[in-house]
Amino acid sequence: MKKLKALERLEDSLAKLPGVGRKSAERIAFGMLEMEDYDIQEFAKALMNFKSSIHICKECGNLAESDICSICSDEARDHSQIMVVSSPKDVLTLEASEGYKGIYHVLGGTISLSKGRGIEDLNIDRLIEKVDTENVREVILATNPTIEGETTAIYISKLLEGKNVEVTRLAQGLPIGGNLEYADSLTVFKALENRRKI
Amino acid sequence: MKKLKALERLEDSLAKLPGVGRKSAERIAFGMLEMEDYDIQEFAKALMNFKSSIHICKECGNLAESDICSICSDEARDHSQIMVVSSPKDVLTLEASEGYKGIYHVLGGTISLSKGRGIEDLNIDRLIEKVDTENVREVILATNPTIEGETTAIYISKLLEGKNVEVTRLAQGLPIGGNLEYADSLTVFKALENRRKI
Repeated sequence: MKKLKALERLEDSLAKLPGVGRKSAERIAFGMLEMEDYDIQEFAKALMNFKSSIHICKECGNLAESDICSICSDEARDHSQIMVVSSPKDVLTLEASEGYKGIYHVLGGTISLSKGRGIEDLNIDRLIEKVDTENVREVILATNPTIEGETTAIYISKLLEGKNVEVTRLAQGLPIGGNLEYADSLTVFKALENRRKI
Repeated sequence: MKKLKALERLEDSLAKLPGVGRKSAERIAFGMLEMEDYDIQEFAKALMNFKSSIHICKECGNLAESDICSICSDEARDHSQIMVVSSPKDVLTLEASEGYKGIYHVLGGTISLSKGRGIEDLNIDRLIEKVDTENVREVILATNPTIEGETTAIYISKLLEGKNVEVTRLAQGLPIGGNLEYADSLTVFKALENRRKI
């Protein structure tokens, strides 16, 4: 018995989703047989509108519902403080902490030798232009504490050297609620190096 | 910053998929920003056609592209041998083993106290009718070797008692390629109980 075409087609599409393998796609497709028709139609509509209704902010590279994202167009935020992150998802994570009132700049990736991605593939020109021409007080480099994120942060800090702006990096150390016993040695090293008086 | 509506809508739909939680839905939706437009449109189309092009076989309850599934309409198969399974997915699994040339009967579930599902909720009438009126030589009960599967198998074997048909159950024992050390005690018990002369 061959698998039904409609099922196979759906599995093919599901298997293309990031992080979903062939086996999961099969499991999900079979499970969807039990789903309500309404939910499946809503899903199809959400997909059709997905790409066309999401824009990239011309100012910062973040996801936006129009040309400029809701953060860049918010006058109440501090436009002299720019947090540099690698992806739009990072913006959501940082916003969830509710501790930041400046704006963002989304690079759209990090410098990566293995992926053949250099600084020229990142959204960086507008950041430099802003620092040069607008009243920018601080650039906070918030790329991930990984080799690629570190490389990217160092590269950008070099680009901003000599300009009239303070360049900072998010603190590295033990995660809150973490356990010293389970921390990797590099994190412990950084936590020791960055220790503060209490 | 609020999450974009299009993104949130897609996440809501993804989170309704079987086995996909809120966190995975978010991860997949963000990953889909990098997907090709074409693949996303194909996905939407596959969804829209999904339910409408899948039928349930009137004979056996299996998934079908028309009224009767490809197995029931296959004259080359042995219609006097019926394998009873709980779901259409089981048919695919059994077909993959290529060891069976009879037909199937899909119950659409198992008797389950916890889910409040009794024998009357299963696709069982047509099976009994077939045994009573057609030339059925053997009914193989292939529900899962779980409590629910066992209960269902026992219940069906009682229903078929006294009828002119052989009722069998799939063998239980150690899985091929398995390791005695890792087998659970019930499986070992069954393997011992069902041991064969070599």
